[in-house]
Amino acid sequence: MRKYYPIIVALDFPEEKRALEIAEKLVPYIKNFKVGLELFSVAGPHIVKALKEMGTNVFIDLKLFDIPNTVVRTLDRLLALEPFMVTLHILGGEEMLRESVKLVSQYKESNKTEYPYLLGVTVLTSFNEETLRRSWGISRSLPEQVLFLAQLAQETGLDGVIASPWEIELLRNNLKRPMLIVTPGIRLTKEKTDDQQRIMTPREALERGSDYLVIGRPITQSPDPYEVIQNIRSQIEDIVESRL
Amino acid sequence: MRKYYPIIVALDFPEEKRALEIAEKLVPYIKNFKVGLELFSVAGPHIVKALKEMGTNVFIDLKLFDIPNTVVRTLDRLLALEPFMVTLHILGGEEMLRESVKLVSQYKESNKTEYPYLLGVTVLTSFNEETLRRSWGISRSLPEQVLFLAQLAQETGLDGVIASPWEIELLRNNLKRPMLIVTPGIRLTKEKTDDQQRIMTPREALERGSDYLVIGRPITQSPDPYEVIQNIRSQIEDIVESRL
Repeated sequence: MRKYYPIIVALDFPEEKRALEIAEKLVPYIKNFKVGLELFSVAGPHIVKALKEMGTNVFIDLKLFDIPNTVVRTLDRLLALEPFMVTLHILGGEEMLRESVKLVSQYKESNKTEYPYLLGVTVLTSFNEETLRRSWGISRSLPEQVLFLAQLAQETGLDGVIASPWEIELLRNNLKRPMLIVTPGIRLTKEKTDDQQRIMTPREALERGSDYLVIGRPITQSPDPYEVIQNIRSQIEDIVESRL
Repeated sequence: MRKYYPIIVALDFPEEKRALEIAEKLVPYIKNFKVGLELFSVAGPHIVKALKEMGTNVFIDLKLFDIPNTVVRTLDRLLALEPFMVTLHILGGEEMLRESVKLVSQYKESNKTEYPYLLGVTVLTSFNEETLRRSWGISRSLPEQVLFLAQLAQETGLDGVIASPWEIELLRNNLKRPMLIVTPGIRLTKEKTDDQQRIMTPREALERGSDYLVIGRPITQSPDPYEVIQNIRSQIEDIVESRL
């Protein structure tokens, strides 16, 4: 059984070599790694296989959003890589979500595994209410839209949702466990943000009810990533112990 | 200069080998091929390079939708493959669209090329008004939502949009050229549909104002793809000639 550890390191690199170097360095301390669009578009499935060979859990974060038939066939290819987590946009709609859940549930059953967690993307951390109105033509507030999508994810049987730190409490109060909440946009201190406009520290996110924390640049671009990881661990150890 | 030909063959295959076999067979007649999520998730960028080596134009249809920084960095990787077309979800929002346009415009300028066409996905062909309401929580009609998104694509500088056959006329009447309209869901006859709920023939689509037609299974799963291609050509030759 995969021991629960909430930290997922995002390997946001434009080259496979650099990504594998960082992973190799961190593997003694970190088990969960995320491969996003950028790295996958340059390395394809090979990067996932290479990370799996290091004994790690790989979150494939491509945020799939296409017609149901294409998403199900794509998921079928990704399942062959034995991922830890996979993301879909909840905006892909009920049919896309239900058919994806059906495929992944059959896979889990025949392989006697609880992975991958199928996670729905609600509203990206780079969105705010203005972007929601101008780009989606939606008049709801951001929290209302996040909750609307998260409830659709729960209804259609997804394992959890990706939601920004500021929606954790709203979701945890409205989503029944075991619905997972995975939180990107985690920063260690309130330094200047890049485009993830809304950010929070690891401890705060876990305390509010998040299950997994995606952390990228604060670890991978630190001159001393071990120190950063130790620092995070010390902040959250008691919470993690309580969840084992 | 790439001679204009409206047919794009979708290589919706789960293995690279099969996709390349079909492409090799069709190359004398077809210049434009589409690589979607399924094939890219199993073959990665290699499939694009292999198709390019055959002298073809490759449409990379991953329907990107992530935070602006991730989409721009992913696009940067895909540009290195010299694609013919690339898709983004317009729902990704204004900032994601504008930053993508900026990157691709700089690329086109420095490489003195008009490619890739950056295309925005409006509403997937598998959606209908009910799915729009239940999954996006949007009360607008489907045509209104398609037009809303298409106009955002035009405003932010995309080269064109992907829209179902039934929205071609609506869009052509509202989008100023040179905005391109690329139409999936093209069938040769009104046979049973799979999940592309709304379909149309090649001639009808071009007559209504579409610029490019994405055709998959009717060609790639035909016992005699040449015959199918000849049949399409004979249907549309006069329209194509008029556009050269």
